[in-house]
Amino acid sequence: MHMNIKKPTLILDKDKCLRNIAFLAEKAKKHHLIFRPHFKTHHSAIIGEWFRNYGVDKITVSSVSMAHYFADNGWTDITIAFPVNILEVNEINLLANKIKLNLIADNISSVKALHKKLTAVAGIFIKIDTGYHRTGIEWNDYNNIKEILKFISTAPRLQLKGFLTHSGHSYFAKSSNEIKTIHADTIKKMNSLKEKFSTNFPGLKISIGDTPSCSICDDFRGVDEIRPGNFVFYDVMQYFLGSCTSNQIAVSVACPVVSVSVNRKEFVIYGGAIHLSKESISDKKNSKLYGLIVEYNENGWSEPVSQTYVSAISQEHGIIKTSAEFIKLIKPGSIVGVLPVHSCLTAQQLKSYHTLNGSEIKA
Amino acid sequence: MHMNIKKPTLILDKDKCLRNIAFLAEKAKKHHLIFRPHFKTHHSAIIGEWFRNYGVDKITVSSVSMAHYFADNGWTDITIAFPVNILEVNEINLLANKIKLNLIADNISSVKALHKKLTAVAGIFIKIDTGYHRTGIEWNDYNNIKEILKFISTAPRLQLKGFLTHSGHSYFAKSSNEIKTIHADTIKKMNSLKEKFSTNFPGLKISIGDTPSCSICDDFRGVDEIRPGNFVFYDVMQYFLGSCTSNQIAVSVACPVVSVSVNRKEFVIYGGAIHLSKESISDKKNSKLYGLIVEYNENGWSEPVSQTYVSAISQEHGIIKTSAEFIKLIKPGSIVGVLPVHSCLTAQQLKSYHTLNGSEIKA
Repeated sequence: MHMNIKKPTLILDKDKCLRNIAFLAEKAKKHHLIFRPHFKTHHSAIIGEWFRNYGVDKITVSSVSMAHYFADNGWTDITIAFPVNILEVNEINLLANKIKLNLIADNISSVKALHKKLTAVAGIFIKIDTGYHRTGIEWNDYNNIKEILKFISTAPRLQLKGFLTHSGHSYFAKSSNEIKTIHADTIKKMNSLKEKFSTNFPGLKISIGDTPSCSICDDFRGVDEIRPGNFVFYDVMQYFLGSCTSNQIAVSVACPVVSVSVNRKEFVIYGGAIHLSKESISDKKNSKLYGLIVEYNENGWSEPVSQTYVSAISQEHGIIKTSAEFIKLIKPGSIVGVLPVHSCLTAQQLKSYHTLNGSEIKA
Repeated sequence: MHMNIKKPTLILDKDKCLRNIAFLAEKAKKHHLIFRPHFKTHHSAIIGEWFRNYGVDKITVSSVSMAHYFADNGWTDITIAFPVNILEVNEINLLANKIKLNLIADNISSVKALHKKLTAVAGIFIKIDTGYHRTGIEWNDYNNIKEILKFISTAPRLQLKGFLTHSGHSYFAKSSNEIKTIHADTIKKMNSLKEKFSTNFPGLKISIGDTPSCSICDDFRGVDEIRPGNFVFYDVMQYFLGSCTSNQIAVSVACPVVSVSVNRKEFVIYGGAIHLSKESISDKKNSKLYGLIVEYNENGWSEPVSQTYVSAISQEHGIIKTSAEFIKLIKPGSIVGVLPVHSCLTAQQLKSYHTLNGSEIKA
C-alpha cells in the first residue's frame, strides 16, 4: 500500500470491489434478473461508473437528494427505494421530467398526493412488508393493496410497476440457512401477490433487495429484479452473517494508534464514531464490537487479527482489545486497519476513498 | 417556528443554548475555574462566537483539524484534548507557531517524539486515567508519571501544564448520586497527584472535563479548569442521567413522516443513522431508544410525547413506537421532532443548524 496516513482514512481495495460487482452481476444474468444495484453504499459517481462495465444501467438510491446526484452524473433510470416523501414533490418533479424515475409508496394518501402534484410520469412500486416490519403494506392486506392498485391504474401520471420489498430481517439471521428460509418465504409471499392481482393488473413486477439473500440464495423464481447494495464493499456484519468471506470485504479504515495500555491489552486509535459510525454487532462470544482489526502490507491488508476487535467507540476514539502477542507490536504512531461493521455508514462518514495505489476518489 | 421543512433538519433553540452557556459560565466563575468549553459538540464558528459574551477566550477541541478550524476563526488559546497523534506533527507545528496550543500525552514515546519534532512551544498536560479506562496513565502509576514530568521539565519546547482527565465513566452512572461519587473520586485522585508532585514541579494545574459532573456537582476543590462540551445543547443521554431537564435540550431534528402503521402503533420518519447517528440508550423500562419525539409549535417544541420514542434506525429511516392516541395525529407528510440521544454526533451528521426564527448557521 502506498500512502502517507496521518488520520482516519478510508482505504478501498478496487480489485475486491470489482470482483464483488462481477459476482452479483453474473448471478443476476444467470437468473435473468434485472440488476438494479443500490448506490447508497458507495454514494460515489466514480465507483458508480465501474458498474457500467458489467452492463448496469438502472440503479437504486435511498433519497431524492441522492437521485439528483446520480441523475446529474448520467444515470437515467433510478428507483428511490424509500417511502415517497411527499414534501419533496418539487424535487421529485424535477427528476421525473428528465429521467425514468420509480417511486415506492405504502399508503393511499401518499399515492393520492402524488397524483395531484406530479407534473411528469413516474413509475410506482407498492412497498410490501414480507416480515421486516419497517415500512410497507402487509403482504396479505389485500384490501389496501387492491385500493392502491386500482387508484394507480386510473391515474395518468402514475405508472404501475409492481411490488417491491426489502427483507431486512435477513440481517438478524443467525445462520445461512435462516437467510435461505427468510428468502424462500419472501419470494413465496411476493409470488402469491403477483398471482392474485396479475389478471386484473397485468405486467406486475417483483423487486427484492437485501444483500444477504442475493449473495447466498439461488432460487429467484418469479423475481424480476434485485436491488442489493452493500455487496459492493461487504463488511463485518455480512461476514458474520455468512454473506461473504473476510477476504471479500473491500474497504478498511486506516487509523493511527495514539495510546497503548499493555496491562489492559488495549490500545486506542484516532478513529471513532464520526469515522466508523456507531454501528455495532455481537460476535459468537457475545462481545459487542465496532470493527475487526487488520494489518496493512504491500498488497493491501491481512486477514483479521485474532482475538482483536474495536470494543468501544466515542466521537474520535476507538478502543481495541487485543492479545498479549499483538499488543507488543503496537506503539503510538503505528497504523492499523479497521474492517467496518457497516460499510454503508462508514463510507457516508468518511466520504472520500483512497485506493491501494494511492489515488483518491471523492464521493 | 417559521420554516419550510422538507427533509431532516437540525433545529436549534438559541435561547436555550444561550441559557446553557450562561449556566456553566457562571458556575465556573463562582468556583474560580478557568472555563475552557469543548467545541466538538457544536463545531461551529458562529456558535463559538456566542461564548465570547460570557468571557470565554480559551477552548477545547478533539482533533488537530478542529483546532485549525477554530484557529482560523480567531481562537488563540486551544487545548487539543485527544492523545497527541504524532503523525500530525507538521499540522501541529503550524498551530504551535501561531497560537497558544496545549496538547495531551499519556506515554513517554509520544512526548519524546514531540520533543524532537516541535518547532515552537506547546503546553503539555499529562492525561490521567481516574477510572474511565479509555486513555491516560493510571492515576497512581507514579513511576510513569514522574518519568514524563521529568522529561517535559527539561525539554525546551514542552511547557509543563499539569494533569488532565476526562471522567467519561460518569456517562454510565445510574443516578445523580453516582455522578457525584465519581466526581468526588476524580478530584480526590487528581488532588493527590498534584500534592505528590507539586514540590518538585510547581504550578501544576488540574483540568477536568465531563458535562454530567460539571452540571450536577458543586465541589471543585483543587480544580483549576473545566472543559465540558455537551452542555451547550444537552441531549436525551444527559436528560436520562439527570444532568439537565428535557427543557434544556437545545437541539431537535425535524423529520417528515413517510409511513404510518396504525395497527402496530408505529410510524416511520425520513431521518436515520446518517442524520441522528446510531447512538442509543436504554430507558427505565430497558427499551433501547435512538431519540424522543416532540411536536413543533409556534414557540419551538413541546415536552417529549409520552410513550413515544425512536425504537430502531437504519441508514435513512427512523421507526417510532407510540401510543394509540398519538398515532391518530400522524399522517404521511406530518413533521415531528426528534430529541437526539447524543447531540455531539447528531450535530456532526447534519452540519448545519436552523434557528427557530428560520436563519441558517453552517457549521
